[in-house]
Amino acid sequence: MAEIISPAERFDLITRRLQEVLGGESIKAILEQGKNPKCYWGSAPTGRPHIGYFVPLTKIADFLRAGVEVTVLFADIHAFLDNLKAPLELVEHRTKYYEYILITVFKSLGIPTNKLRLIRGSSYQLTKEYNLDNYKLCAIVTEHDAKKAGAEVVKQVDNALLSGLLYPGLQALDEQYLGCDFQFGGVDQRKIFVFAEEYLPKLGYAKRAHLMNPMVPGLAGGKMSSSDPNSKIDFLDPPEVVKNKIKKAFCEEGNITENGLLAFAKAVLIPISELRIERAKGNTVADEQEGAVALGEQKPFIGEDAPEGTVFTIHRDPKFGGPSHYRSYDEMEKDFAEKKLHPGDLKVAVRDAINSLLDPIRTAFEGNEEWQKIEKLAYPDPNAKSDKKKKVKVYHPPPPGKGKNVKPADPAAADAGEPEGAPAEPSAS
Amino acid sequence: MAEIISPAERFDLITRRLQEVLGGESIKAILEQGKNPKCYWGSAPTGRPHIGYFVPLTKIADFLRAGVEVTVLFADIHAFLDNLKAPLELVEHRTKYYEYILITVFKSLGIPTNKLRLIRGSSYQLTKEYNLDNYKLCAIVTEHDAKKAGAEVVKQVDNALLSGLLYPGLQALDEQYLGCDFQFGGVDQRKIFVFAEEYLPKLGYAKRAHLMNPMVPGLAGGKMSSSDPNSKIDFLDPPEVVKNKIKKAFCEEGNITENGLLAFAKAVLIPISELRIERAKGNTVADEQEGAVALGEQKPFIGEDAPEGTVFTIHRDPKFGGPSHYRSYDEMEKDFAEKKLHPGDLKVAVRDAINSLLDPIRTAFEGNEEWQKIEKLAYPDPNAKSDKKKKVKVYHPPPPGKGKNVKPADPAAADAGEPEGAPAEPSAS
Repeated sequence: MAEIISPAERFDLITRRLQEVLGGESIKAILEQGKNPKCYWGSAPTGRPHIGYFVPLTKIADFLRAGVEVTVLFADIHAFLDNLKAPLELVEHRTKYYEYILITVFKSLGIPTNKLRLIRGSSYQLTKEYNLDNYKLCAIVTEHDAKKAGAEVVKQVDNALLSGLLYPGLQALDEQYLGCDFQFGGVDQRKIFVFAEEYLPKLGYAKRAHLMNPMVPGLAGGKMSSSDPNSKIDFLDPPEVVKNKIKKAFCEEGNITENGLLAFAKAVLIPISELRIERAKGNTVADEQEGAVALGEQKPFIGEDAPEGTVFTIHRDPKFGGPSHYRSYDEMEKDFAEKKLHPGDLKVAVRDAINSLLDPIRTAFEGNEEWQKIEKLAYPDPNAKSDKKKKVKVYHPPPPGKGKNVKPADPAAADAGEPEGAPAEPSAS
Repeated sequence: MAEIISPAERFDLITRRLQEVLGGESIKAILEQGKNPKCYWGSAPTGRPHIGYFVPLTKIADFLRAGVEVTVLFADIHAFLDNLKAPLELVEHRTKYYEYILITVFKSLGIPTNKLRLIRGSSYQLTKEYNLDNYKLCAIVTEHDAKKAGAEVVKQVDNALLSGLLYPGLQALDEQYLGCDFQFGGVDQRKIFVFAEEYLPKLGYAKRAHLMNPMVPGLAGGKMSSSDPNSKIDFLDPPEVVKNKIKKAFCEEGNITENGLLAFAKAVLIPISELRIERAKGNTVADEQEGAVALGEQKPFIGEDAPEGTVFTIHRDPKFGGPSHYRSYDEMEKDFAEKKLHPGDLKVAVRDAINSLLDPIRTAFEGNEEWQKIEKLAYPDPNAKSDKKKKVKVYHPPPPGKGKNVKPADPAAADAGEPEGAPAEPSAS
């Protein structure tokens, strides 16, 4: 049976492992009234989601467990604008693919999704009210402030596009139009969040709280490269592919600062392991449904013989010292820094944990024909129709000067390549 | 009876007295097909229209006489954004006031308005299609290009607002959404027009032609000052006020470069005088209805005894040499440069001509209670309700963080002062 937790406990669950909280008092006040805070998290369905997506979703699992009403915004208009070569239809397929991944991840973690709402930007970002507010913002926001707000997330180039100046304001308006109490995002969103806190009240709207996750580097360590497929593990990569990618991941003995594996263990694997341990003890926090239905094995990432309090186990051959049982991420990091934990052993443990996380997702995909169809439409094989490639930059010739027929532009041909500069997607890898 | 004029004659009528025509071939092609070109001219109903408004309207009279289908856009959204202190309601009253002025001016000139369409920006600038196109433009237009396009009409300040960067794109989209073949404006719009010619085709829309009027200085000569009421004559100023303003106007003997009176005579008085002379001869160009109904006296600004070919007469006491009859503006300008035409005599002639133009407008206003009501609502006496002034910068407090109720901002209290920076209003005075 579920225990009813106190407002203070709910607040701790909502804010644990975050790097920064702005406006936490307003969240506390809502909890004190016995109400459910409302959260908004945005993601632009531009490319193909990789397992870095687990980072925000693991935190969102905390929100849902604490009774937060979570709205996930799929910023399809933004995704379209970031890659005008891709027609809106392609973006729609990608949005559906993202929805499948997201729902399946929560199911695989046994998190009830009755307080989860998925919404598309196109459902309200083109309305009269929203656009009038956008114009109003543009009439009070200076170029300087817009540029400053986007400095961390909008590419800073000499020939910057106007869209980059609009994004901070649109993201602020989304808070109002999605009716949230707080927005969640990576700490790279901080300047945009502060901008929203300043400008929404100038339109007569409430200032929202902002909860920020730390940034998590890619599995390859150091800088991610979108041209290096090994730096990203896909949700549907088969076990052998995961194995090979982890094998090639940068993981230097004693180096804890540029270590994507340690970072992923800290942000995803250990929190999920803890969640499973808590649930095995019957502590399902606020929701009775939690864990009632879960896809796949719900075993924590600890050994059979792990002592009480262990959250992560590194299995190791007895001749090399046997397993290490860690009670916290910090213990594991310390061992790695002191070279008591070898990169090879860490890799095996992380690889196995990732594969156990992906198993139910792969299985769900294989058993769902609709999802498979969407996957093909959302990410068509770039080699299969190479004759289409040529069309990418061709526009339709201007129509004769009649004008009255409003005709949206129809740039030809899908591009399966990964677009860049997604404004609302967390930069975790 | 009206004469049917040739495509070449129609083209000459459309383009006469313009400073520049871009894309004239496309207009010629439409005329060759026996069709009516479509024109769009925009005006932001921000402040109170003064008689400088006669400058574009005199040119638009040519368009209408040549069978052009003219759309006048009242950019109410822009007007609202340019002065967020003024609620939309006030802008709506001002728009109605502008409509009264415009229709009455055409009636007073005897120009049929069956090919004239008045439209408000708010009727289409907040639609889904328009805004998606706006976002698309923002995704391909650089800050640099937007700033360059607006350089002549958007105030160039360090803390520039985003709205200034959006205006060129919106004005380009208006060409498409209003279905025009050409846009008309002052030559100060040139960079925005060139921007539209470059970017509309990138959205798959037709490139439009652009017809530009020369810039006309204010009656005060030299730089206009909105704080100097004498530099502007209101459409409803009584004859004595007009007399006083003209008396105070800067008009230096022999100086033809900074001379608002000469400029007004060139752009408005002489063209209208010519129109009346032509019509008196039965030449009503393309439209049979022309001149059939006209408010007020339709006498050209020439003396009773003026010889054939005269377009403007300066009345002068016989003891000072008697009247001067000019066959063209150039003749009059030459006389003024050579000090053969004295500023005092010019002032009297211009004053009388302006008063004869304003007579039917004042009469129409006095006979129209609805218009009088609108005038009071559109331009409330700033001294009458001085207690309201304090509210100008007060915003409603933010609503509680419920959010779902979309509530447009409602900045309090009307400000009767004249807003600045109207983007689409011709800069004529």
